[in-house]
Amino acid sequence: MIIVMNPRAGEEAIRRISTRLEEMGYRIHRSTGENRTILGVIGQRREEVAQTLEALPEVEKVVYISRPFKLVGREFHPDDTVIRLGEVAIGGPKLAVMAGPCAVEGEEQLLESAWAVKSAGAQILRAGAFKPRTSPYSFQGLEWKGLEMLSRVREETGLLIVTEVMDQFTVKDLAACVDILQVGTRNMQNFYLLRELGKIRKPVLLKRGMSATIEEWLMAAEYIMSGGNYQVILCERGIRTFEPYTRNTLDLSAVPLIKQLSHLPVIVDPSHATGKAELVPAMSRAAVACGADGLMIEVHPRPAEALSDGPQSLNPEQFTRLMEDLKGVARSVGRYV
Amino acid sequence: MIIVMNPRAGEEAIRRISTRLEEMGYRIHRSTGENRTILGVIGQRREEVAQTLEALPEVEKVVYISRPFKLVGREFHPDDTVIRLGEVAIGGPKLAVMAGPCAVEGEEQLLESAWAVKSAGAQILRAGAFKPRTSPYSFQGLEWKGLEMLSRVREETGLLIVTEVMDQFTVKDLAACVDILQVGTRNMQNFYLLRELGKIRKPVLLKRGMSATIEEWLMAAEYIMSGGNYQVILCERGIRTFEPYTRNTLDLSAVPLIKQLSHLPVIVDPSHATGKAELVPAMSRAAVACGADGLMIEVHPRPAEALSDGPQSLNPEQFTRLMEDLKGVARSVGRYV
Amino acid sequence: MIIVMNPRAGEEAIRRISTRLEEMGYRIHRSTGENRTILGVIGQRREEVAQTLEALPEVEKVVYISRPFKLVGREFHPDDTVIRLGEVAIGGPKLAVMAGPCAVEGEEQLLESAWAVKSAGAQILRAGAFKPRTSPYSFQGLEWKGLEMLSRVREETGLLIVTEVMDQFTVKDLAACVDILQVGTRNMQNFYLLRELGKIRKPVLLKRGMSATIEEWLMAAEYIMSGGNYQVILCERGIRTFEPYTRNTLDLSAVPLIKQLSHLPVIVDPSHATGKAELVPAMSRAAVACGADGLMIEVHPRPAEALSDGPQSLNPEQFTRLMEDLKGVARSVGRYV
Amino acid sequence: MIIVMNPRAGEEAIRRISTRLEEMGYRIHRSTGENRTILGVIGQRREEVAQTLEALPEVEKVVYISRPFKLVGREFHPDDTVIRLGEVAIGGPKLAVMAGPCAVEGEEQLLESAWAVKSAGAQILRAGAFKPRTSPYSFQGLEWKGLEMLSRVREETGLLIVTEVMDQFTVKDLAACVDILQVGTRNMQNFYLLRELGKIRKPVLLKRGMSATIEEWLMAAEYIMSGGNYQVILCERGIRTFEPYTRNTLDLSAVPLIKQLSHLPVIVDPSHATGKAELVPAMSRAAVACGADGLMIEVHPRPAEALSDGPQSLNPEQFTRLMEDLKGVARSVGRYV
Repeated sequence: MIIVMNPRAGEEAIRRISTRLEEMGYRIHRSTGENRTILGVIGQRREEVAQTLEALPEVEKVVYISRPFKLVGREFHPDDTVIRLGEVAIGGPKLAVMAGPCAVEGEEQLLESAWAVKSAGAQILRAGAFKPRTSPYSFQGLEWKGLEMLSRVREETGLLIVTEVMDQFTVKDLAACVDILQVGTRNMQNFYLLRELGKIRKPVLLKRGMSATIEEWLMAAEYIMSGGNYQVILCERGIRTFEPYTRNTLDLSAVPLIKQLSHLPVIVDPSHATGKAELVPAMSRAAVACGADGLMIEVHPRPAEALSDGPQSLNPEQFTRLMEDLKGVARSVGRYV
Repeated sequence: MIIVMNPRAGEEAIRRISTRLEEMGYRIHRSTGENRTILGVIGQRREEVAQTLEALPEVEKVVYISRPFKLVGREFHPDDTVIRLGEVAIGGPKLAVMAGPCAVEGEEQLLESAWAVKSAGAQILRAGAFKPRTSPYSFQGLEWKGLEMLSRVREETGLLIVTEVMDQFTVKDLAACVDILQVGTRNMQNFYLLRELGKIRKPVLLKRGMSATIEEWLMAAEYIMSGGNYQVILCERGIRTFEPYTRNTLDLSAVPLIKQLSHLPVIVDPSHATGKAELVPAMSRAAVACGADGLMIEVHPRPAEALSDGPQSLNPEQFTRLMEDLKGVARSVGRYV
Repeated sequence: MIIVMNPRAGEEAIRRISTRLEEMGYRIHRSTGENRTILGVIGQRREEVAQTLEALPEVEKVVYISRPFKLVGREFHPDDTVIRLGEVAIGGPKLAVMAGPCAVEGEEQLLESAWAVKSAGAQILRAGAFKPRTSPYSFQGLEWKGLEMLSRVREETGLLIVTEVMDQFTVKDLAACVDILQVGTRNMQNFYLLRELGKIRKPVLLKRGMSATIEEWLMAAEYIMSGGNYQVILCERGIRTFEPYTRNTLDLSAVPLIKQLSHLPVIVDPSHATGKAELVPAMSRAAVACGADGLMIEVHPRPAEALSDGPQSLNPEQFTRLMEDLKGVARSVGRYV
Repeated sequence: MIIVMNPRAGEEAIRRISTRLEEMGYRIHRSTGENRTILGVIGQRREEVAQTLEALPEVEKVVYISRPFKLVGREFHPDDTVIRLGEVAIGGPKLAVMAGPCAVEGEEQLLESAWAVKSAGAQILRAGAFKPRTSPYSFQGLEWKGLEMLSRVREETGLLIVTEVMDQFTVKDLAACVDILQVGTRNMQNFYLLRELGKIRKPVLLKRGMSATIEEWLMAAEYIMSGGNYQVILCERGIRTFEPYTRNTLDLSAVPLIKQLSHLPVIVDPSHATGKAELVPAMSRAAVACGADGLMIEVHPRPAEALSDGPQSLNPEQFTRLMEDLKGVARSVGRYV
């Protein structure tokens, strides 16, 4: 942490602040420039201390040197984390593909989707039983009934299941019947939920908040890991920008950047990012090409009858073709589907 | 709702879609242009129907005509909503001022803050017992102990209390001991929380999500109102943009815009919006000048000792001066402090 | 400037970099932390040096301490700049009001607008002879013919004239016939134009680029001032965000912030910022309340016949009412209309 | 174009507007809903007419049906445009690779860069003689002297040259000595420049404005094409968002989206987009995987000595490795390097 003193800060103030920080256990390196004095503060990063200092009129700004995250960082954990679920590994050379409908609409639709994505090569079925919807007048999901259907389809097809968890009170019940718990974009900073997810021992798929910086996103993963659950999968799903042609702007640079900063696996959801089924194949290929460990793709047996997100869903035939297409790109970066 | 057909859509597809919509109870007006056919669809707005249509390859786009909100809209409720809490009215000619520290840090700090803001003219004390924090290593609030302190200070000072509610399971307990429940920016689309808030009969202060459009914000209010709780206060607190000098960008245009679209009262929080105490007075005056019904301002007895958000807190003397300053601006727009 | 060395940077690299900077005339303060070494570099800020350093693999990041601007900064010029044009002063206690149509459409329309805004109290007529338009098929302005009309109307009405200059080659010709040269939002970083404007001795109204940070905007002003022209007026006109209800998001916090950072006058254009005539009065009041030195407002005799920007133009009656309204707000902040 | 009338608009206003539009040559389809009347307006799109209508108090909003662009659109030009420069084709199966230093710094540096990128397989040398820089105190390019160096290096190496043109007055001189004229991000809406570029018969590389929507970008291309120059290459180079870890956010979804909307070739500049050399290889692969027709990459013989943009430049060895890497990805999408 570096403290840049105000040009008008006097000697007395500089000494007072230095002394106070030394009493808190920090070591101080003072550097006196032409216009400003700068204090290098050596020791553990603590936001409270920084904020307190910034509130002083004699301080111009406080600059952080170290990253705020620890457990998610690659600095002290240089090897990639690989999350294993039976025969499926997320973060290894084989791409993890999660596919399925936006929402569980009924057992038949779910089963049909499951067999379709399985036969095309997906290992994990995605489908929401609890649906966050912008309008109170929209379909809100089948909730617990939907969850039961997911359990039955899991047993019947042998697919792993990922589904969204909406609050801290349902974490344990969901963890008992699905394989991966998904935190949606609106919940990325629901800190009570994150803390509860830190207590379980099941993988968590953490979607990026639609206006979250990469640092905030990694800090959300830090919440889960600081509770003792190290199985976190990050999922880039587009950020909010001024561009209206796509639903969100898919930030693929986040993939290689996170690979530098963190050891956690990263997957990409091109369906929510673009909101347009016709862009999904191209963006899936791009995601694999820049190093994503997997994909999350919306597939619906009949998109034009979907109760939500139809325009961004592939039909089974399109999905099968995409899985074929991905083989070449995967091979070119040393991976396989 | 208007359906713009793809230029390549044939007569058969146009007829099939028209018939299906008529079977669902809509009336159809067809308009055949040089390149495209357009179908005007008359009847109740339903997102599912629109999405289903957009997923059809023959449909180019679907354009909404009516706004998605009903209860929050001014169209069917032309008069301003005024929320009354004993002698305090939010939405009336007297500005509602909510002030106090970011977090409850202890009883002494809270009481000192409370008397300070009361003597300067605030009617409502703000302070967080539960604190959402970006880092798991930061101070997370005194939680239930903090809430007890708020109750005691409320009794002692006679100030009304507004504090943040973090999830649907604590709604009832909080409603029992504070006057206004605040939904924070990260929870604006926590739909389970919103639905629970629809069941109580206490005012809800709904902060705008940091990347929420005005329409999404009003839809969040619609969730609460659709449950039967009509006492919603909107609070503009800055949106996320590319500008790094301020913590957020205060979107004051939202104030007169919401006054057109909705009958609900709107207040402004310049402390979180700017993140800089020195900008708070100017932006408070601006908020009043463009029609805000009140302000939410962070005040701490000693900002440089605050456990959170010190740099954006006014000290009691600065707050008293601000309240004096506001008198003139308020008068110029027909209101008073 | 502070250099944060990579945790893996060895002693040899640290010494090599230090020596090289000392040879360039900098003084170095070294600070050795637990994981990283930090070098405080004292001397003139130069971006090239910083970029060169950042390209070294041993350097993690370079942090600037001083602001990049000099002449625009308040640090070495504590008093407010007031720009005088005959009896009109921009930056003084009387608000500077610039009003008129978006584009010069014809002599009659211009004259009618001019008398209307003058009788309502504006001192400066705004109107574009050269119009930057998104579509090549839209009306592009009357160009030189429009400029002649502006000259004649200036003579007839005694109003000062502000109009947009589009490139460096027309700066002198425009400077000869108008009072203030406006740099539009798309030209804020047209550095050849800015340099040419540095050579004249007429005031320049510098609009903020629609996605420019405040620092970039001040650097654009620095370009003009570094050429010797100190008469720069900044104009906030809204920035581009994700919100679709308004054309741009008016960033009023920029006003008090610039008053801290710089001595230059700042005015606000609520017409382009919001794109909606009905929001202009409220945002004009807010601009004055937070310290703006003036306003730029679109007024058209018959907005529904305007060739551009009709939806955001006030008619003369609305403008007259607004000027009346502003009196109270101006008085409350120690100014007058 | 569709006109949504205000719910309060009376029969008289609806008739008056319909008649006026019919007099202008439009055909009108009227559709009377429960709350609103909607007028479908059939005929040529003209923004002035739409704006004029929107300024009427009886009109709620005007919705466009057709896209504003014509010549750039794929609708009337279904085949891909391929731009041929001798043996190089941009838009064909072979990827077009433009590489070289940010700025011409001297003949030796340029020649060294040129041979390096040529031997790695690039066909086109990029280097700026005129440099737009945020600070007036930064290196501004060698200007005409730099251009002469580019000419000599072109002759010596046989590479094609792409360089930035800064204003309309230098278009012809630059066109005489380079192969492709580049419009920089800050000039994307410099309409005088675009119009001048419409008059030449050399390819133009049009970078996306850093806050331009895809529609505005295509409209800028329309300016050039409407002048008669059909050789436009679009270049995605990142947009401005709230994310601070990368210089800009590379919007790769724009690539497949433009392929749908337009027949023009699209290339990607991952160097400016990310600002970090270490992200360039991954984002180059992603660009090719999602359908880009080529890449523009910064390469400097010694990035740590570059006078600008060193941190985002590859050295020759890294670039050679990248070109090798691209072969596999290119093959997987049916292209080659």
